[in-house]
Amino acid sequence: MDVTSKNLVVEKAKTSRIEQIDFDHLPFGANFTDHMFVCDYKNGQWETPKIIPYQPLMMEPSASVFHYGQAVFEGMKAYKDDEGGIWLFRPDENFRRINRSGERLAMPAFPEEYFFEGLKKLLLLDQEWIKPGIGNSLYIRPFVIASQPAIIASPSQEFKFIIICSPAQSYYGGEVRVKIAEKFSRAADGGFGYTKAAGNYAGQFYPTNLAKEEGFQQVVWTDANTHEYIEEAGTMNIFIRLGDKLITCPTSDRILDGVTRKSVIALAEDRGIEVEVRPIKVVELLEGMKDGSLKEMFGSGTAAVINPILGFGYKGERYELPKVENSYAATIKKQLMDIQYNRAEDKFGWRYRVK
Amino acid sequence: MDVTSKNLVVEKAKTSRIEQIDFDHLPFGANFTDHMFVCDYKNGQWETPKIIPYQPLMMEPSASVFHYGQAVFEGMKAYKDDEGGIWLFRPDENFRRINRSGERLAMPAFPEEYFFEGLKKLLLLDQEWIKPGIGNSLYIRPFVIASQPAIIASPSQEFKFIIICSPAQSYYGGEVRVKIAEKFSRAADGGFGYTKAAGNYAGQFYPTNLAKEEGFQQVVWTDANTHEYIEEAGTMNIFIRLGDKLITCPTSDRILDGVTRKSVIALAEDRGIEVEVRPIKVVELLEGMKDGSLKEMFGSGTAAVINPILGFGYKGERYELPKVENSYAATIKKQLMDIQYNRAEDKFGWRYRVK
Repeated sequence: MDVTSKNLVVEKAKTSRIEQIDFDHLPFGANFTDHMFVCDYKNGQWETPKIIPYQPLMMEPSASVFHYGQAVFEGMKAYKDDEGGIWLFRPDENFRRINRSGERLAMPAFPEEYFFEGLKKLLLLDQEWIKPGIGNSLYIRPFVIASQPAIIASPSQEFKFIIICSPAQSYYGGEVRVKIAEKFSRAADGGFGYTKAAGNYAGQFYPTNLAKEEGFQQVVWTDANTHEYIEEAGTMNIFIRLGDKLITCPTSDRILDGVTRKSVIALAEDRGIEVEVRPIKVVELLEGMKDGSLKEMFGSGTAAVINPILGFGYKGERYELPKVENSYAATIKKQLMDIQYNRAEDKFGWRYRVK
Repeated sequence: MDVTSKNLVVEKAKTSRIEQIDFDHLPFGANFTDHMFVCDYKNGQWETPKIIPYQPLMMEPSASVFHYGQAVFEGMKAYKDDEGGIWLFRPDENFRRINRSGERLAMPAFPEEYFFEGLKKLLLLDQEWIKPGIGNSLYIRPFVIASQPAIIASPSQEFKFIIICSPAQSYYGGEVRVKIAEKFSRAADGGFGYTKAAGNYAGQFYPTNLAKEEGFQQVVWTDANTHEYIEEAGTMNIFIRLGDKLITCPTSDRILDGVTRKSVIALAEDRGIEVEVRPIKVVELLEGMKDGSLKEMFGSGTAAVINPILGFGYKGERYELPKVENSYAATIKKQLMDIQYNRAEDKFGWRYRVK
C-alpha cells in the first residue's frame, strides 16, 4: 500500500523480517529494519522524499562517493519507554550537525521538515523494532552520499539522503583501554575533523588495529602538531576527572561537537560538579596517575553513551585507572539514560516524543 | 560469450556504446567504456576477478564505504601510438601505490597478477575507446571500496576492487590560477594525506569553491601547522622555478608521491636542470615575484600531466607570473608526453606495452 503525504511517499514492505532477529544477541549495526528513508538531490533541488522497503542501492561505479569520499552521516537513537512511548534525544542537534558537516564538504543542506517528517514516519512504521528496557534502542543512521556518475574531482551535483535503522544493545562489550596516539593523527587544523564526514573514520582503522595488537580497544587521538594534547577517540569525546573536577577539551575544527559531550557537561554542572573545558595535556594524565588525582576517564558518544576507560597506554607504558566510588561516569550515564528512556525529569527539554 | 582464464572470467558486452560518444568533446570522467573489471574480497581472500559489461553496482545502504570512507583509488592513462600500439606509463607505480594507500586504510593488498592480467585484458577489449593523437588517452580508474554491510566503525571485512575506464582529452581547459591556502588544510602530520584515499578529496571541495568565487581554479595547500610552506594542489604536486632551478617539496605523510612528479624530476635532471627537493616557503614565492626570480609554477599529475600555473593569490593579493621563454613546464611536458605516446626514446624504461 502506498501512502502519500505532501512531503513524503511511503511504500510499505510486504512482509517484515523482524521474526528473523535475535534481539537478545544483536551485533552492532548489522541488522536493519524493514524500511528506509531516501531522498534524492538532482538539478539543484531535493526531490520528494520516500520511505521504501529496505533494499540495496543501485550505484554507478563512477559515483563520486566511491572516489572522493563526499559523504557525511549522523548517529542517533530511538528509545521506547515502559508505556510504549517512543523518544529521540536532542534530534535537532543531529539535524543541524549533518547540515554543518555537509556544508564543509560542499553538500547541499537538507530541509528540516523532510528530515523530521521522514524520520518520525519511519520510526512509526518500524516501531516494533524498538525494544523497551535500558540499553535497548534503535540506532538511527542518517547519511548523505554523493551519487553523481562522474569521476572528476569536484563537488557532486547529485546526492542521496538516506536514513536506515538498526536495533541495538550497548555498543561496547565493556572494558575499554585506550592507546594515546604518539605518531598517527586523526585531523588537521583547518581540516574537517569536526564533521561526521566518512573520510574521518577510515584513516583511524589502521592505527587502531596496531593499538588492538597491543591490547587496547581504541585510540585517543592527540593534536597532529605536537601530540601533547588529547583530543577525541574518533567515535567518542573524552572526559577526565582530576580530583573532583571533570575536564574535557574544547571543540575545534579538529574535534566533533558531540551531543552526548554537551549533555554530559550540562548534567555534571547541574549536579554541582565543577567542569573545565580546556586543552588537556597528556602529561596531566601521567601526573594524575602518579599523585592519584586522575580518578576517571571516559568517552561519550551516541553509540556508546558513556564508556568508562579502564586504562591507557603511552610511550610503551601502561596505566590502569583506580576503581573509584561515586563514579561520575556511572552517575551521569544513569541520569542521561533515565532521561533518554523517559524515566526521569527532562529539565533541559532534550526528549523529543515520536509517539 | 564467456572467456575464462585461470585468473580471470570475462563476460563480453553484447553491444558497444562507443558510437554514442563524441570523442572531440569529452567531458572529463563522465563516459565509460563497455567493460569493467571487478574482484570481490570475502572471507579473507580475493575471489576470481571478472571483466563484465559496465554496469551499476548493487550496494547495501549499510556498506562501509558510504559511512566510513574506506576507499582508495588510482589514476592512470593508456595511450595509443600512431601504429596502434597501446601503452601504459609506469603502471607498476600505480599498482604499488594503491596497495600502499590501502594498507594505511586497513584494506587488504590486491595481487599483482590479478591487477595486470585484468587491466591488460580490459584495455584490449575496449581498445577502440583509446584514440591516437597527443592529448587523447583512456583514463583508467582502479579503485577499492569497502562493501561489508555493517555500520560498525571498524575495518570492513569485504571489499570490491574495480577498474573503470573513461576516454579523455586533457583534464584542464587551460588557464590555472591558484589560491595559496591560509586557513584551510588538506592533511595532518601522522594522517593519510600521502594516500589516494577518497577521504582526502571531499574536504578540499568547499575551500576550492571559495577560491573559485575569487577567480581561482585550484587551491595550493600549505602545512596545517603554520601555513608557511606549500605542499600540493590536491590533484597535482607543485613545482616552482626560481631562476634556473626547479624546486618541489619533499613527499611526506601529508603529500602524495606523484608518479608524474617523480618523472618530472628525473627528466629535468636528465636535461641538466638543477632540481631541489626541499620545503618551499610561501614567502619565497612572494620574494621571487618581487625580484623576478620566480619564473614558473606548475602542477604535475596523471590527469593534468603538467599544468602551468599562471598566477596565484595570497592574503588578498594577486600575483601574475611572467611569460617565460624556454619554459620548463612546456619542455618537460612535451618530452613526457612524447615518451607516453611512444614518440621518443624511453631511456628510463617507463613505458609498458599492452599491445
